[in-house]
Amino acid sequence: MRAGVFDSGIGGLTVVKSLLEDKLFEHIVYFGDTARVPYGIKDKNTIIRYSLEALEFFKNFDLDIIIIACNSVSAYALDELRANTNIPVVGVIQSGVKALQNKNIPKNSNILVIGTNATIKSNQYQFFLQKQGYKNIISIATPLFVPLVEESILDGDILEATFRHYFKDIKNIDVVILGCTHFPLIQDKISLFLNNANTIHSGDAIVEYLKYNYNCYGKFKETKIEFFASSNPSSLKNIAKKWLKKEDI
Amino acid sequence: MRAGVFDSGIGGLTVVKSLLEDKLFEHIVYFGDTARVPYGIKDKNTIIRYSLEALEFFKNFDLDIIIIACNSVSAYALDELRANTNIPVVGVIQSGVKALQNKNIPKNSNILVIGTNATIKSNQYQFFLQKQGYKNIISIATPLFVPLVEESILDGDILEATFRHYFKDIKNIDVVILGCTHFPLIQDKISLFLNNANTIHSGDAIVEYLKYNYNCYGKFKETKIEFFASSNPSSLKNIAKKWLKKEDI
Repeated sequence: MRAGVFDSGIGGLTVVKSLLEDKLFEHIVYFGDTARVPYGIKDKNTIIRYSLEALEFFKNFDLDIIIIACNSVSAYALDELRANTNIPVVGVIQSGVKALQNKNIPKNSNILVIGTNATIKSNQYQFFLQKQGYKNIISIATPLFVPLVEESILDGDILEATFRHYFKDIKNIDVVILGCTHFPLIQDKISLFLNNANTIHSGDAIVEYLKYNYNCYGKFKETKIEFFASSNPSSLKNIAKKWLKKEDI
Repeated sequence: MRAGVFDSGIGGLTVVKSLLEDKLFEHIVYFGDTARVPYGIKDKNTIIRYSLEALEFFKNFDLDIIIIACNSVSAYALDELRANTNIPVVGVIQSGVKALQNKNIPKNSNILVIGTNATIKSNQYQFFLQKQGYKNIISIATPLFVPLVEESILDGDILEATFRHYFKDIKNIDVVILGCTHFPLIQDKISLFLNNANTIHSGDAIVEYLKYNYNCYGKFKETKIEFFASSNPSSLKNIAKKWLKKEDI
């Protein structure tokens, strides 16, 4: 199987990492819109417009499925993307919510959803969680985590102060949904700050989702990956080498 | 006189504020490329490409001058912009350096230049400072100040920790050049952290520069401003009302 993976920038590499670990695909085409990142501060119409442009790009390849790694795109543009292609388009929000069921998280758990402004404002996580019977949901936009991760600030004073800023009124959380592909890089620190709350990681969640819903099983010996970016592709490739611990990119 | 003011997003409003205070223009057309902000993390070719698109937009107006409020655009795209229009295009870097002379800053002063990754990497401030005889120059990219200002984090623990992060090895600074239009909003805090160093503000610097080089004198009773944005113009207008303390926008 051949998959296109779309993200606003580099964050989607955390999803690619999960896809590689489970060897789900024979070939992955990654496109990061690095010229126009971040999407999380943009409005709905702009996110839809840019996502449809990315879809046009993917039409140059013979793909079986398109995976939307970006939460902001998953929140706003899935319907429009699906209306403009015949192959399946899968986002990270429904799969993230599904992961709670797979982990048998009780319906009365206290759930914290964190993400960019766009993702939180869309209310999509909250909508699907409620549909699954979860009621105790708090959602907070934590946009500063994105530049912190991009600046490789993965621990220390700034991150601690930012945790205190966003989480000052947050107590007794059982599960944190990491609603942005940048957040897995500070997943352990977030969990620790919130008294070892469980975390839901978009990449791991979508692997499970693809297995059960699209018959993707880890059967390929090796995955060929091609990286494309709307600006500075060599920088994307360098980060991919580091994050994926893969030299031949 | 009628001026176009171009910025990658909202930061250029700090320049507009200075232009309004000195009543330099009869009419200002502001364009913020809010759909594609920030520019400071983009590469040179992308910044040039987007700047030329903004120039095309300004051609819809009968303008006398175009002011590039964005330091990253001033660093990379001035030559290309000038080659594509007959009206003057003025950036904030040369005017910022000129401000040191206007303030009679001694040539042996210790100067710190801070800005986005793109601006610092361009070496433009350093080049013009050296040309003016300044030799003791330190430059640091401080990209996190941009999202902090955008999130209205203008004091407190996160900002202090970020100062310690960027300025841990910085001592005895006489003058700080604020090489990004977001930074005037934390100007006092930066100065205080660096033992009350002098600060150079792009907006104030360009007002002086326009007066001396382009015969702009504060003679207009009122300035009409029009705001345009590539995404979410109402959000830009709301921030403009707040920053410029002006209700009729």
